Amino acid sequence: MVKVVVAGVGTIGKRVAEAVKKQHDMELYGVADVSQTGGLRTVLSEKGPLHGTHLFASNDEGKENLEDQGFYVEALLEDRLEEIDVVVDCTPPGIDEKNKENMYEPNDVKAVFQGGAPDDIAEVKFNADANYEEGKDEDFIKVVSCNTTSLSRTVSAADEEFGVEEAVASLVRRGGDIPQDSRGPINSTIPVTEVPSHHGPDVQAVMPELDIKTMAVKVPVTYGHVHMVNVELEQGASIEEVKQAFRDQPRVELVSAGEGYDSTGKIHEKMRDLERPRSDMPEVAVWEETVKVEDGTLYWIHMVHQESIVVPDNIDAIRAMFDMEDKKTSIRKTNEAMNIE
Amino acid sequence: MVKVVVAGVGTIGKRVAEAVKKQHDMELYGVADVSQTGGLRTVLSEKGPLHGTHLFASNDEGKENLEDQGFYVEALLEDRLEEIDVVVDCTPPGIDEKNKENMYEPNDVKAVFQGGAPDDIAEVKFNADANYEEGKDEDFIKVVSCNTTSLSRTVSAADEEFGVEEAVASLVRRGGDIPQDSRGPINSTIPVTEVPSHHGPDVQAVMPELDIKTMAVKVPVTYGHVHMVNVELEQGASIEEVKQAFRDQPRVELVSAGEGYDSTGKIHEKMRDLERPRSDMPEVAVWEETVKVEDGTLYWIHMVHQESIVVPDNIDAIRAMFDMEDKKTSIRKTNEAMNIE
Amino acid sequence: MVKVVVAGVGTIGKRVAEAVKKQHDMELYGVADVSQTGGLRTVLSEKGPLHGTHLFASNDEGKENLEDQGFYVEALLEDRLEEIDVVVDCTPPGIDEKNKENMYEPNDVKAVFQGGAPDDIAEVKFNADANYEEGKDEDFIKVVSCNTTSLSRTVSAADEEFGVEEAVASLVRRGGDIPQDSRGPINSTIPVTEVPSHHGPDVQAVMPELDIKTMAVKVPVTYGHVHMVNVELEQGASIEEVKQAFRDQPRVELVSAGEGYDSTGKIHEKMRDLERPRSDMPEVAVWEETVKVEDGTLYWIHMVHQESIVVPDNIDAIRAMFDMEDKKTSIRKTNEAMNIE
Amino acid sequence: MVKVVVAGVGTIGKRVAEAVKKQHDMELYGVADVSQTGGLRTVLSEKGPLHGTHLFASNDEGKENLEDQGFYVEALLEDRLEEIDVVVDCTPPGIDEKNKENMYEPNDVKAVFQGGAPDDIAEVKFNADANYEEGKDEDFIKVVSCNTTSLSRTVSAADEEFGVEEAVASLVRRGGDIPQDSRGPINSTIPVTEVPSHHGPDVQAVMPELDIKTMAVKVPVTYGHVHMVNVELEQGASIEEVKQAFRDQPRVELVSAGEGYDSTGKIHEKMRDLERPRSDMPEVAVWEETVKVEDGTLYWIHMVHQESIVVPDNIDAIRAMFDMEDKKTSIRKTNEAMNIE
Repeated sequence: MVKVVVAGVGTIGKRVAEAVKKQHDMELYGVADVSQTGGLRTVLSEKGPLHGTHLFASNDEGKENLEDQGFYVEALLEDRLEEIDVVVDCTPPGIDEKNKENMYEPNDVKAVFQGGAPDDIAEVKFNADANYEEGKDEDFIKVVSCNTTSLSRTVSAADEEFGVEEAVASLVRRGGDIPQDSRGPINSTIPVTEVPSHHGPDVQAVMPELDIKTMAVKVPVTYGHVHMVNVELEQGASIEEVKQAFRDQPRVELVSAGEGYDSTGKIHEKMRDLERPRSDMPEVAVWEETVKVEDGTLYWIHMVHQESIVVPDNIDAIRAMFDMEDKKTSIRKTNEAMNIE
Repeated sequence: MVKVVVAGVGTIGKRVAEAVKKQHDMELYGVADVSQTGGLRTVLSEKGPLHGTHLFASNDEGKENLEDQGFYVEALLEDRLEEIDVVVDCTPPGIDEKNKENMYEPNDVKAVFQGGAPDDIAEVKFNADANYEEGKDEDFIKVVSCNTTSLSRTVSAADEEFGVEEAVASLVRRGGDIPQDSRGPINSTIPVTEVPSHHGPDVQAVMPELDIKTMAVKVPVTYGHVHMVNVELEQGASIEEVKQAFRDQPRVELVSAGEGYDSTGKIHEKMRDLERPRSDMPEVAVWEETVKVEDGTLYWIHMVHQESIVVPDNIDAIRAMFDMEDKKTSIRKTNEAMNIE
Repeated sequence: MVKVVVAGVGTIGKRVAEAVKKQHDMELYGVADVSQTGGLRTVLSEKGPLHGTHLFASNDEGKENLEDQGFYVEALLEDRLEEIDVVVDCTPPGIDEKNKENMYEPNDVKAVFQGGAPDDIAEVKFNADANYEEGKDEDFIKVVSCNTTSLSRTVSAADEEFGVEEAVASLVRRGGDIPQDSRGPINSTIPVTEVPSHHGPDVQAVMPELDIKTMAVKVPVTYGHVHMVNVELEQGASIEEVKQAFRDQPRVELVSAGEGYDSTGKIHEKMRDLERPRSDMPEVAVWEETVKVEDGTLYWIHMVHQESIVVPDNIDAIRAMFDMEDKKTSIRKTNEAMNIE
Repeated sequence: MVKVVVAGVGTIGKRVAEAVKKQHDMELYGVADVSQTGGLRTVLSEKGPLHGTHLFASNDEGKENLEDQGFYVEALLEDRLEEIDVVVDCTPPGIDEKNKENMYEPNDVKAVFQGGAPDDIAEVKFNADANYEEGKDEDFIKVVSCNTTSLSRTVSAADEEFGVEEAVASLVRRGGDIPQDSRGPINSTIPVTEVPSHHGPDVQAVMPELDIKTMAVKVPVTYGHVHMVNVELEQGASIEEVKQAFRDQPRVELVSAGEGYDSTGKIHEKMRDLERPRSDMPEVAVWEETVKVEDGTLYWIHMVHQESIVVPDNIDAIRAMFDMEDKKTSIRKTNEAMNIE
């Protein structure tokens, strides 16, 4: 079985580690960090979801820190690299690059990087739905960011069925995650003054043929971005056909405002009512009432749960790198193990 | 001088009354209401901006209410209608229609209605920049809503210079005004599930040739909507030319994120630092860094102060109805009196 | 086994139903409602925590509603009352009273009511930690509200060890729950103008000897109230002794700001990291750094998760009513089944 | 006339400068800064309230900065110190101390410092209502912070009339000011884990005899702190007598929730409706319905506008230092010039 280490137990890292643990064809060899991050103490605690998982220190100083903070450190990560097949690197920007250079490349360990890493850290920018095959046998893959992932999933679904000529997406981003209480704004809307914003080119790294432009603002919410999207279709489509294309996408969920899910808060509550771990929603949620086709233009509004959406794609990236499964099978396996959709 | 009464002293009404008072070619004959609304007591108080203004009751019951609440009521509005030339009706939806039928029409009093009124209340939907001339000699005019006004001003500025073929606007609306503390959302983003939203047709009521589509969400802020706009231009334009077109629009202001005005909160502070009454901003604020032209598409992001943007258009509507001035002169007079731009 | 029905599947009801299902000495006979509430569809769905639970209609009209909305309704609740031992009534205020009169009393069914019910609906106002014994063999019990429960738990812990002469608590309440996005305030703090507020007498219903006064405000957050408390102790206590008294209270948890849990958002994240269902926290969380004793006065600040804190007390209320266990055993059983502490 | 310079044109500085300008017995000689702060460009602009005021640079580097940013700099501040009588120093913590040592002391210029300055920067901690006389002829005065000022004003009013033995205040603080959109929290309540908090000793610096304890939390609002206060009175008092004592305090205002001012947002709107500059409220607003006396304990809830409350005390501090007026006259003059109450 592929042995996986997750480096950096933050927002993404803790979720990826738990997702790896739930798969049947890979093994969570351990997690690595340099200090007590928000969740580390809790997820490793007796009632935590990673209880019993080996904790490695990413470097000597980190080992000292962690031990000072009362953690048992199994070993330095680099002393175990030859037993490891792949590291999912969820460390902060800047660290990921150094890790690649100092640890992964010299030791022939594969690595999956996250959306915040520099673009040239890996040749392939990865989204399971849009370009799974390109990840095959790669040594380094970068899984694209949450906003990019949601656009890749939805636009590729429309593109495959009806052909997309041009897309414009307006992003309404959350200010910070639930525990990030030092981040604002309070009572303010902040435009991203770079227009078009970087999210368009990010999607194009995954779907190079696509002409997509994006604009963005930041608002005072903690759970979920919302995107207002309009795309020019190459061929006609009925509203029902578009909904079906979204339904057929295994990580897009149609939610109905009419059934009571008419806001990000209500969708959050739905995830709570399903008792999803952390109330996460790795699927993109498209409000079905907002899917509209007029004069060849397709419109919709969707919600992105910024903390969890990329987690299944990290799992699929591992399967692609080791050529373990074809796209469809990998996505199905990941979804089943994670109880998605 | 044209004698003006403002009926309904709420968010819009109190501002219009004060704006009328500041003009040199019309007279604020009084305000009318049926009960103590949020601001009535304060604006009429000794230090309030409408101190000394006559207060009329809109009906018998209203007279009793107001007197019970300690107000001095000059008279019933209907008993003075023959001395009045025009009523700016800022009453809640439903009341405006009845007022037209029962008071304004039978007494040959002209009236200006607001964005919340039904569309058929007046033949002309009015925005001073886009269609001032159409208001001439009309008996009834409806000034369009805050979102519509901002789009009319900016898109018409681009249209006049470069021709606009198609426009798409994504609206990020405030949840409630500063004193409306029973309104949400808290920590949630709420999509308008009607896609395209009604704001597009509303703009088309003012600019019938324009092909414009809109989508909208509501977020937890109290001061200002933000619009992300992209339009297809008929003819080429440089960024500088577009900025100049906006600068030439007398109720559009370019603000610079680089100079520190990089959010709605910072622009609010700018209005406070200018000691504008109520920290209002009747201009549309376009972030100048967001003005971009690429492949014939023009992009920008602007902010709308929902409480005050329509106030100058109400004043201009009066001038148009009585054929007092041409468009340019009316706008200049209103702006000067209100200290705009 | 005691057969339990939960009537009203809202915020409290859905949680109590799931908690009943987890106990080994009582049976969730079913849930009852009159219409699709926020969570009903989801909790009963294939992946929901109440999948397979019988759904009853509380009345004929409710049966029709639910069937129209696509639910399978097992029966009218009243047709099964003779098979049921107790109803946990979580219906909206007003309905609870009618249910008691029309259903529970005539059919000799016991009932547990919630904090929103009128005070005279049951003789005993119940908090498991403070007055479990008083619930014994009662037919009707009212579990006190979330704020009252948290004060009862913490103050009774201090009272038992050191004697409490007087207490003052200042409550900072959340504006609405996560899905209640029509509720405000946005960017405003709203005082409860009734001073002292009703929360003091509510605690006294549980601890009649206690002299406690409360004041309260409402703020724009969705997850958790915060209380600032100070009490006069009858006998001396060290900080460490007070902390130990809190630790010994089986539903109070000391959390450490120093370990990173320095806000309600961070504690929310802790519950997410523990993968608690719905990220709930039925314990009161006392920030341990805030426990202070000076000149005979004890100070602390605690957090209350308004949606889940009363759930274990509902379970204990059932055990008390049927004299199934003594206080200590009941609390232990409930906590173990719910994975509390 | 006393010549005043305000150093540091931030939140407090710009307001103090404008207040000095409005007085008849002192002269605003100029303002000093080192760089474009939020408001500097706007307040000095053609329509700004400080248009025409001399701008000095606080040091050589500052002069260069300001000139690079397009400002006209009159001179270095230190080159004009001999013409200046007093500097109101509103610079960030750390700078104030250096300014005292390097500029004010060597040049025999008096100075007024703000709440953020170290306690030993001046012997006298000043609040006009509580200890005006102590400021007489001092060279250096520190005006206490916004929270402390509000408590000093209200508690001293109660103390003078009825004697206050002990006070406990629970503070609900705003997260950041209107333009401070990088500050949180969003959707979180953050306790100050230092219990009792530093605000108590701060009040005691002004009222040394008072036994006062405070606790505090931070919440997601931008306009106004709210304090819940309870004090033990030495002698009996009726509610009406307490209200009268507050009414007699020239910088405390009783506001009525019943008249519609039942939240900080509604009081903000009242200031907007009065067209106060920046919608500021230098008075403490006590909700009159919350004033209650029970068993010798007096309760109330008040609101503090954090940006403007200390401004009049800065003016009075100047008058005290130069022995220009007695307390009552100074307060009256300041209030009249600032249109307070």
